[in-house]
Amino acid sequence: MLEDKNPQLTPISAYGEFGLIKHLTENFSFENSSTETAVGDDAAIINPEGKKVVVSTDVLAEGVHFNLGYVPLKHLGYKAVVVNLSDIAAMNATPTQILVSLAVSNRFPVEALEEIYSGIALACKHYKVDLVGGDTTSSTSGLVMSITAIGLEDEENIVKRNGAKVNDLLVLTGDLGGAYLGLQILEREHSVFLANPNMQPEMDGYDYILERQLKPEARTDIKNILKELDVKPTSMIDVSDGLSSEILHLSDQSKVGFRLYEEKIPMDSLTISTAEELNLNPVMCALSGGEDYELLFTISPNDFDKIKNHPDFTVIGHAVDLEQGNYLVARGSGELIALNAQGWDAFLNK
Amino acid sequence: MLEDKNPQLTPISAYGEFGLIKHLTENFSFENSSTETAVGDDAAIINPEGKKVVVSTDVLAEGVHFNLGYVPLKHLGYKAVVVNLSDIAAMNATPTQILVSLAVSNRFPVEALEEIYSGIALACKHYKVDLVGGDTTSSTSGLVMSITAIGLEDEENIVKRNGAKVNDLLVLTGDLGGAYLGLQILEREHSVFLANPNMQPEMDGYDYILERQLKPEARTDIKNILKELDVKPTSMIDVSDGLSSEILHLSDQSKVGFRLYEEKIPMDSLTISTAEELNLNPVMCALSGGEDYELLFTISPNDFDKIKNHPDFTVIGHAVDLEQGNYLVARGSGELIALNAQGWDAFLNK
Repeated sequence: MLEDKNPQLTPISAYGEFGLIKHLTENFSFENSSTETAVGDDAAIINPEGKKVVVSTDVLAEGVHFNLGYVPLKHLGYKAVVVNLSDIAAMNATPTQILVSLAVSNRFPVEALEEIYSGIALACKHYKVDLVGGDTTSSTSGLVMSITAIGLEDEENIVKRNGAKVNDLLVLTGDLGGAYLGLQILEREHSVFLANPNMQPEMDGYDYILERQLKPEARTDIKNILKELDVKPTSMIDVSDGLSSEILHLSDQSKVGFRLYEEKIPMDSLTISTAEELNLNPVMCALSGGEDYELLFTISPNDFDKIKNHPDFTVIGHAVDLEQGNYLVARGSGELIALNAQGWDAFLNK
Repeated sequence: MLEDKNPQLTPISAYGEFGLIKHLTENFSFENSSTETAVGDDAAIINPEGKKVVVSTDVLAEGVHFNLGYVPLKHLGYKAVVVNLSDIAAMNATPTQILVSLAVSNRFPVEALEEIYSGIALACKHYKVDLVGGDTTSSTSGLVMSITAIGLEDEENIVKRNGAKVNDLLVLTGDLGGAYLGLQILEREHSVFLANPNMQPEMDGYDYILERQLKPEARTDIKNILKELDVKPTSMIDVSDGLSSEILHLSDQSKVGFRLYEEKIPMDSLTISTAEELNLNPVMCALSGGEDYELLFTISPNDFDKIKNHPDFTVIGHAVDLEQGNYLVARGSGELIALNAQGWDAFLNK
């Protein structure tokens, strides 16, 4: 079969604003009974069904949060949704709806937006959330995506950042540092490609950390696992900016300090070996790397037996009096190293 | 007193992401009992208090929706909120919360963001809505604002676009065309200024239309007026893109056609005289200009007596069978002119 090597791309202006939104969203179906009406009116209508509404928003900007030189558009759409659902999961709530706003320059054809929306659709399907609104506009340059995520939850299930008590255990889901090291590999291979477009990128063997960077998942599963174990966290946050700054947020809101044990921080063997290959300290990647989207929470010490053998959870520290501050307890020596907020920050890491 | 003519401006990086959001939002207070927690956790918690949740989002991009050469930042913040509240008002619902996302290039100092937030704060106070979340990030160029507005409303009050019936009356609040002509004056004077920075802009006498463009208001008052008059619209939309395209939206969703009477379209005398000064057809400005943020709705003909003498409302047409199409009935001649969707479109009007 003959293939058109240069398929005709469609300029966004061929659709206009309303036609474009309709075109991009017409194949979305709904999973939640709480979604009464969605795209097509001035606003969407959601039936809270007796629950509290939990709502969060995050913006992703080209050249700051992603580089289209190595991030496929479909992955970008998927990840933009995940980042927002992670915030809802961090309230121990169930995400139900999202709204998507895009500002795109005219250098993007309609086909590029279709790719982004195919990733959004995949995430909606995987997490059973409904796309209920959005706005798409042109911009003078670049791509900016802003997503608002809505969750509905019974009041008694919701967990905030401010409930940790002295002696509570600090617990983490999954492992850390992978997303940051995946990014380092992508940037290294992209630099090689820019220097010599004939070089093949060396991505073999880095699958796990590349997936952690390009296709992260929100831990919406944790809420149900904790419910089955009959554990309600006393405070919770998601690890979007690095473990260190998240611990400081819990400390700030709960008015306790924390001790974090270096030897307890869970890391995948590929994360550790890649850090060593790149001459990076693996623990620093976990503390400051960010984008792992795991959940960090505290539980009463009385609940320790319920979670101690569960493969999803690692106890990595405990809460102390606020006056005792927030410190990493070094492996072996037991030396106390002050935690600081060198998490990933969009204004500094450019 | 000596004044520093070149005050030191603060780069955004001096705060970092979390410090910046905290700095910009710490003086916001809450007006609504439904706002349980706001900025400071992974997500805000809203108590729907037995009502349905109405939610909408809009994005404004520099160089597309506004030109910082003549739009003061405080007005931009105010207008960005108003545009979103107008969508909630168009559902006949009461806006209660907003979330604000900003992507800004490093050319903006913290003081510029403070100006935008002072406009956002003013709008929140005026409309009694609470800022409950947001995200602020850097961008590679320009300023993009994305706002999500949330309203809570009893189900029986909510009005969608799809309920208009044949013979229903088409009703408009306020007057049209002013915002578009205000923009023409701003652009004319800005061009003069760019050509000769010593020329004083000639803005005197254009107050009403400049205010319509720079500081529009959302018609959140209409819901209460209609309630007092015991009128529930059968369909409703806000006039953000021009009367013509809004009528087509109601037609599309309600499966009726419309007759719009040219002589009934309400316009301010300054709007008409400015259109004539600029050699523009005033009616075209009303049909296609956009940004007036008035409400367009349909009512049962049985309700005509209830609204006919109210100064806020003008009956401008009526609904017919879908097969009869959507037409403007020309003044005097009665000629039928097809309505088309040449409203303001971010992808075409650049």
